[in-house]
Amino acid sequence: MEQYALPIANLIEQFSKLPGIGKKTAQRLAFYILEMEDLEAEKLSMAIVNAKERIKLCSICCNLTDDDPCHICSDDNRDKSTICVVEGAKDIIAMERSREYRGEYHVLHGVISPMDNIGPKDIKIRELLNRLSDDVVKEVIIATNPTVEGEATALYLSKLIKPIGVKVTRIAHGIPVGGDLEYFDEVTLAKAMDNRREM
Amino acid sequence: MEQYALPIANLIEQFSKLPGIGKKTAQRLAFYILEMEDLEAEKLSMAIVNAKERIKLCSICCNLTDDDPCHICSDDNRDKSTICVVEGAKDIIAMERSREYRGEYHVLHGVISPMDNIGPKDIKIRELLNRLSDDVVKEVIIATNPTVEGEATALYLSKLIKPIGVKVTRIAHGIPVGGDLEYFDEVTLAKAMDNRREM
Repeated sequence: MEQYALPIANLIEQFSKLPGIGKKTAQRLAFYILEMEDLEAEKLSMAIVNAKERIKLCSICCNLTDDDPCHICSDDNRDKSTICVVEGAKDIIAMERSREYRGEYHVLHGVISPMDNIGPKDIKIRELLNRLSDDVVKEVIIATNPTVEGEATALYLSKLIKPIGVKVTRIAHGIPVGGDLEYFDEVTLAKAMDNRREM
Repeated sequence: MEQYALPIANLIEQFSKLPGIGKKTAQRLAFYILEMEDLEAEKLSMAIVNAKERIKLCSICCNLTDDDPCHICSDDNRDKSTICVVEGAKDIIAMERSREYRGEYHVLHGVISPMDNIGPKDIKIRELLNRLSDDVVKEVIIATNPTVEGEATALYLSKLIKPIGVKVTRIAHGIPVGGDLEYFDEVTLAKAMDNRREM
């Protein structure tokens, strides 16, 4: 970094902390910003500050929102008896895009991962259990990702929730629509076979 | 963008204006920032503001710098008789990494490109000509990229500079070191043949 002026080196360093941005990309972004109109750069900087200041967790479902409760929790047309549990707030965006699901959500903000020192208390599990106490919720759909940590978290949650008397389900794993059999790994194929349905 | 809270939508929009950052990546970056420590996000935002405020163009070579003149122009050990002309400030970084060149630089901040409405007056050509008036500079090495616009700009500059009595050279184009013949296009190969040297 020696050869850069300090403010440039610092900008490159901050960019390279972002996910998927290596040293080369960080350098390209930094120089792009330096050649940009001042106003445009200020807009980016303000957007970061603004988002951090105004976006909070929904006090019910822990979704990222600028209103509390969030627009999903405050929507009376949604089915209050079902909660879909996801790892991150962007999973809600993906799920909503399908227009299939009309229940509520709960964002864990992570998964249990002993390797990374993330235990059950580090994610929003307590907040989820609190929502199950008043007998409104009949089903919890666990939609964590099909990774080792996602599966372990799903198992942990089901063991915790079933004794309360709430139905716990897991979203189906299999071949994505439009996918080609030969491109999927054996675990996905095995899951797809296990989860087969009569036609 | 409908489904995002406004500050999130705005952050995604600002990120997607950066080069090489599509909608998906912008979304990933925005959510990463929302989940980040407040202090870290502030560092990124401040790095942008800081770089824009403190980095100016060197009054001699138009390099991006926080000192004026820049560290290269103010270095008495460098050869003042040679100027290497580059398109952007990051080209200087690349050139300096080779530790081969010990002359000075001049940053054009772009190339002549009629398609994009960029004429000779929109890049730092006048500033370059001003540097040639006092008879110190003996050679101008044109190191614009080997694109249509880069070549046209090189030609334009050589026609402008030669009459002043300053030698104008162009960096060599050919097969990069470690490159494999079969992977290069015919124009590169033709250039490599044209520029062949006796061994």
